[in-house]
Amino acid sequence: MKTGRLEAFSDGVLAIIITIMVLEIKVPHEPTFDALTPLLPIFLSYLLSFIYIGIYWNNHHHMLHSTEKINGPILWANLHLLFWISLIPFATGWVGENHFAAPALAVYGVILFMSSVAYWILEQLIIRKNGKHSLLAVAVGKDLKGKLSPILYLVAILATFVIPWVAQAIYIVVALIWLIPDTRIERIYDKEELLHQQHQREREREQEPV
Amino acid sequence: MKTGRLEAFSDGVLAIIITIMVLEIKVPHEPTFDALTPLLPIFLSYLLSFIYIGIYWNNHHHMLHSTEKINGPILWANLHLLFWISLIPFATGWVGENHFAAPALAVYGVILFMSSVAYWILEQLIIRKNGKHSLLAVAVGKDLKGKLSPILYLVAILATFVIPWVAQAIYIVVALIWLIPDTRIERIYDKEELLHQQHQREREREQEPV
Amino acid sequence: MKTGRLEAFSDGVLAIIITIMVLEIKVPHEPTFDALTPLLPIFLSYLLSFIYIGIYWNNHHHMLHSTEKINGPILWANLHLLFWISLIPFATGWVGENHFAAPALAVYGVILFMSSVAYWILEQLIIRKNGKHSLLAVAVGKDLKGKLSPILYLVAILATFVIPWVAQAIYIVVALIWLIPDTRIERIYDKEELLHQQHQREREREQEPV
Amino acid sequence: MKTGRLEAFSDGVLAIIITIMVLEIKVPHEPTFDALTPLLPIFLSYLLSFIYIGIYWNNHHHMLHSTEKINGPILWANLHLLFWISLIPFATGWVGENHFAAPALAVYGVILFMSSVAYWILEQLIIRKNGKHSLLAVAVGKDLKGKLSPILYLVAILATFVIPWVAQAIYIVVALIWLIPDTRIERIYDKEELLHQQHQREREREQEPV
Repeated sequence: MKTGRLEAFSDGVLAIIITIMVLEIKVPHEPTFDALTPLLPIFLSYLLSFIYIGIYWNNHHHMLHSTEKINGPILWANLHLLFWISLIPFATGWVGENHFAAPALAVYGVILFMSSVAYWILEQLIIRKNGKHSLLAVAVGKDLKGKLSPILYLVAILATFVIPWVAQAIYIVVALIWLIPDTRIERIYDKEELLHQQHQREREREQEPV
Repeated sequence: MKTGRLEAFSDGVLAIIITIMVLEIKVPHEPTFDALTPLLPIFLSYLLSFIYIGIYWNNHHHMLHSTEKINGPILWANLHLLFWISLIPFATGWVGENHFAAPALAVYGVILFMSSVAYWILEQLIIRKNGKHSLLAVAVGKDLKGKLSPILYLVAILATFVIPWVAQAIYIVVALIWLIPDTRIERIYDKEELLHQQHQREREREQEPV
Repeated sequence: MKTGRLEAFSDGVLAIIITIMVLEIKVPHEPTFDALTPLLPIFLSYLLSFIYIGIYWNNHHHMLHSTEKINGPILWANLHLLFWISLIPFATGWVGENHFAAPALAVYGVILFMSSVAYWILEQLIIRKNGKHSLLAVAVGKDLKGKLSPILYLVAILATFVIPWVAQAIYIVVALIWLIPDTRIERIYDKEELLHQQHQREREREQEPV
Repeated sequence: MKTGRLEAFSDGVLAIIITIMVLEIKVPHEPTFDALTPLLPIFLSYLLSFIYIGIYWNNHHHMLHSTEKINGPILWANLHLLFWISLIPFATGWVGENHFAAPALAVYGVILFMSSVAYWILEQLIIRKNGKHSLLAVAVGKDLKGKLSPILYLVAILATFVIPWVAQAIYIVVALIWLIPDTRIERIYDKEELLHQQHQREREREQEPV
């Protein structure tokens, strides 16, 4: 089973999720600049969620790029990830419409937390299927960001009950952690490239007549 | 005629159907946890329908993976299947908004029943086109699950008029039947892989100069 | 320039158009079978439009399958076609909500007429680019259906001002004309296959050293 | 990293953006031709935005067609472009519903301006990655249209505060500038084709045994 159609379906779902969020920015009835003011928190939460879904798309793209084999459980782990990401527009709309109220921020955090857990499950299943020495297993390595994110989300969820703006700050910080160019990743990518070439050379050797 | 664009179009439609259902979970106006309570049945029916469409996507993916040739009637049988699946979001919204009321559950069952019939028609047309000894024909085999599902849906539809919760239970059970890892399928898949290799070897032999 | 991304984009747009129409079937607030009665005309107009967009997808699929070269004007003629088809959900919703009232039926006819004209323009541009002896030019041939459809739409538009149900009947008849298995098309398709093989043999001959 | 999935995701997002705009044309409740009159400005703004997104799709298609290598920053520059384009439906709806009122026209201009800036950033990053002598760098050349458009948008934004219809005229003119067949582009395209063939010949020479 190849990754082609899994990628196509995930691209479709992520493209729709990232786009239908914009429908939450309802067209105001009055043609004045003042009519835009209440839309500001909705716009800001849209921006943040757009970045989050962009991060998921980027990571998903890289992960499946290094994947050679998939199976049934991987298909379902992928759908599980898409399920939680599909709830982001709902949480985004609720956060935006209620000016970052605590319960909405908590629900937003729960959905981000579940998405990161679902991503981790998918990653583990792919590594199990493709072997500990596969490209993905090497590229992921210790995956500090992947382990730190769910912990930060849990902190943020707890923070909403005490100081809501801390949760907001954490959501922005986690997004920035993933956004900021990471020289380590570039290096891993080069390493992956090298590994890939090595793999191919080994295969060619095996196919060569002795 | 190859399966490429048929898969791409079906992926697009299924990706949209699975995602627009989430628009039924309307953003509450109040920023309290209590405001989420009325959303619970809507969330649960979304979860069930997400799993159903995921099952259809998985099965469709496997079916077309084993398909070599398509024709006009197959294109239309595929659109027929997508038509019934496209009504799932409507039935899901109605079931969720009315807290699993009997008429909504009956309509949900009718749409699931018609979808399973449409899937069966598509499968038969593909097998007819690709031959009784094709990969798909062997992989499908007796297809117990495929035959059991529409019967269970019919039982569920009738049950809604007497004891509605039985219908709910049946919808969940059918989803679980498809979800639970099925060693039989894995074996069929291995068999398919073997058959595929055999096919290729035969073709190579035919092309070899004698 | 290859047809790959043109097909992918058109598939995406057609998949969305065919699916968002279902959003017009609004979830009723009451959980009774009677609540479904006012939805019947909306359901029927959805069914008809689903078939129409299915026909366009099928024909578009066949047309681009026989296309080798595209250019700028073809890209725009394709967008022009998608523009008119994108208005079908609007007309469908209006027809359904107003129980097939004359003005809605007329607007529906205008959009179907413009879509068929846009399809014809696209076809002509592709034939011009790929040559009079190209696969498509031969496959299209006299294209009786393609020429008859816009004329029937015009008759239907005029009919809405006199006897509205005639328009309805014409829309159903045109859909059936395209749906009914057409042995002529199958023959053309076989012819196309033959032509394709001939083309390839000629190319191989050209590339062979003399 | 290849461009395949970047194109697929962008196609998905652009296909959804271009299609959900049509949801702004709300189905009127009365079945009379008069009920269509208030929809005229909404229809016209839909038409204009459809053309703009069509232009972006066309240009994006050409740009990535000439791209060989991508990296992380290019993925994000692409998402940045999609973000601004995703706001076009909102601005379109606001402009249409308020009969081209000045503030709506200004916001429409700001979003078009930001989109053109985002496109320029993406183009520069791709050129930097693929080299000054890459196909894209040559094809883009001086890119008069690309530089003129943001300036015209700025003029239009300022004009909305003085004579709003000038802004409308500018938006139409910019769209026409991009739409009108451009012999210069065709020539560049031929040049690109030549360059591509030259590239391939050079590679073949390198791979040939000396």
